[in-house]
Amino acid sequence: MVRRRDILTIVLVILPWMLLISIWHQRTVTHLLPNQKGNSLRHILQESVCGFKHMETFSTQYVSSRHLPRSDVLPVIYIITPTYTRPVQKAELTRQVSTFLHVPNLHWILVEDSPKRTALVSELLLKSGLNCTHLSTETPHSYKPRGPSRDSHIPRGTMQRNLALKWLRETFQQNSQQQGVVYFADDDNTYSLELFEEIRATHKVSVWPVAFVGGLRYESPKINVFGKVYGWKTVFDPHRPFAIDMAGFAINLQLILSKPQAYFRFRGVKGGYQESSLLRELVTLQDLEPKAANCTKVLVWHTRTEKPVLVNEGKKGFTDPNIEI
Amino acid sequence: MVRRRDILTIVLVILPWMLLISIWHQRTVTHLLPNQKGNSLRHILQESVCGFKHMETFSTQYVSSRHLPRSDVLPVIYIITPTYTRPVQKAELTRQVSTFLHVPNLHWILVEDSPKRTALVSELLLKSGLNCTHLSTETPHSYKPRGPSRDSHIPRGTMQRNLALKWLRETFQQNSQQQGVVYFADDDNTYSLELFEEIRATHKVSVWPVAFVGGLRYESPKINVFGKVYGWKTVFDPHRPFAIDMAGFAINLQLILSKPQAYFRFRGVKGGYQESSLLRELVTLQDLEPKAANCTKVLVWHTRTEKPVLVNEGKKGFTDPNIEI
Repeated sequence: MVRRRDILTIVLVILPWMLLISIWHQRTVTHLLPNQKGNSLRHILQESVCGFKHMETFSTQYVSSRHLPRSDVLPVIYIITPTYTRPVQKAELTRQVSTFLHVPNLHWILVEDSPKRTALVSELLLKSGLNCTHLSTETPHSYKPRGPSRDSHIPRGTMQRNLALKWLRETFQQNSQQQGVVYFADDDNTYSLELFEEIRATHKVSVWPVAFVGGLRYESPKINVFGKVYGWKTVFDPHRPFAIDMAGFAINLQLILSKPQAYFRFRGVKGGYQESSLLRELVTLQDLEPKAANCTKVLVWHTRTEKPVLVNEGKKGFTDPNIEI
Repeated sequence: MVRRRDILTIVLVILPWMLLISIWHQRTVTHLLPNQKGNSLRHILQESVCGFKHMETFSTQYVSSRHLPRSDVLPVIYIITPTYTRPVQKAELTRQVSTFLHVPNLHWILVEDSPKRTALVSELLLKSGLNCTHLSTETPHSYKPRGPSRDSHIPRGTMQRNLALKWLRETFQQNSQQQGVVYFADDDNTYSLELFEEIRATHKVSVWPVAFVGGLRYESPKINVFGKVYGWKTVFDPHRPFAIDMAGFAINLQLILSKPQAYFRFRGVKGGYQESSLLRELVTLQDLEPKAANCTKVLVWHTRTEKPVLVNEGKKGFTDPNIEI
């Protein structure tokens, strides 16, 4: 028969080693999880219902290290950001990186309006350490805005957002259990860190106010006493099916996967109806889930950066063009 | 005499427990370090040499929690930010918070152009968890810019930056061993995270390029083959003593403390000479330390946010004024 002292000794030896092994294991898993080795793919797409009129080239790249450990429990937030080359592009993406680095389980799908992925964006993503996918597709010239006016009838970023939706459907078709939320976050907006925690639990489509749109301090869904959306606090055409800005809603990934026909419409869409063209394929007003304390808090601002004045550059450029800004 | 088996048992018991205790201790210290309890003070200052013409009220507040542990080894980066009430203020400060939360040992001195500290800024700072000091002083109306023009001759933010310098000198007069670097970071610029690591080792005054100033892609110090600054790559008045933007230099805290007369000049200073009015009191051109790979990289952008169009608010306001934007 084993003596009582021996049992105590065995327990005293085994217990702390088990605890230590458990701690080491936890750390190893945390370090290994973000290191998803990259795959890369190259597609040529034909015209489809979602506005892909021209041939497109796109590629995917995963970057290995992330500052925050990846969780298997939290749904992934897939951020879709269309972007294009301009003087303030790197500054705006730099801000987004600083914000996104605080958000656990974030996957950034950055889509350039360009025939190829640019070195500027590729290097910025690589350096950021964010988990990301880098795509590109060029908007045909006939659809690009002309001159300095910001004409809301021109659906800038539409092809890029649609390509990201297509990428999600192709990537997750065989793994439909992936839990996630999709959010369209343009590169000039300002995002509170709270926003990402709010939208992570989105069952179908969640909605909230956005500052500085429609000539107002903020636009917002209207919420009734039962906590349901019954209309839109907006001056510009409040009778739109979904009178909401691109920055004001998030969609459950499973809903995106289950409705493969849902895209942003590229043609024949009036100004302010882009968001409705996607959302009406996915939900009705009754399905919407108000966030941000029942839509009483502003967690995202539709800021815009001034075009910088570069009058002193001269025709040949005063500064060294090899120095990236 | 103790048996060999007993010794082995004792080692097997003691070793893992010591390791476990060491891990627990490490975690506890990491949690405790950021929790510096606050003090608060309230001063009334008389006119002084640095442009404090009117009576001022200012207060200090330390906020307890910080996301990053505080290091006793790294010099503290003191960020001085003047700010004022406007629609995009919270958005711009929100971006700064997201950036600054990544920087270890940062202390943010935020100075409002206001007779009192506002609730909006106080709450934002409290929520941010950043280590900070919150001050306020109102610029006399005769010095404030009138109309929509951005007249560079009007020294916006000057009184606020000077008050922060005064606060540093009052706070550290009895502890002159404090190692730190002072940087003037306005609330509309964009900052790369690399910038803060570059400037942390500043012996006197460090300098680097800034994008989108003086009508150029970037302005920069000119560096000779010996790695010394010999002039300024700028179109606008390159013969200024220090032809550099406010975002383009950082100063060692000890230098600030050792030259108590050095302030930004408030009156009689031509446009573009504000920075020189402080720097010429502190250093000569020969003292400057080029950063950002010998001034060949852009790590800060002088971005500006568009004033939002709020034409649909109407005279009484369409949106709820109790909802903060």
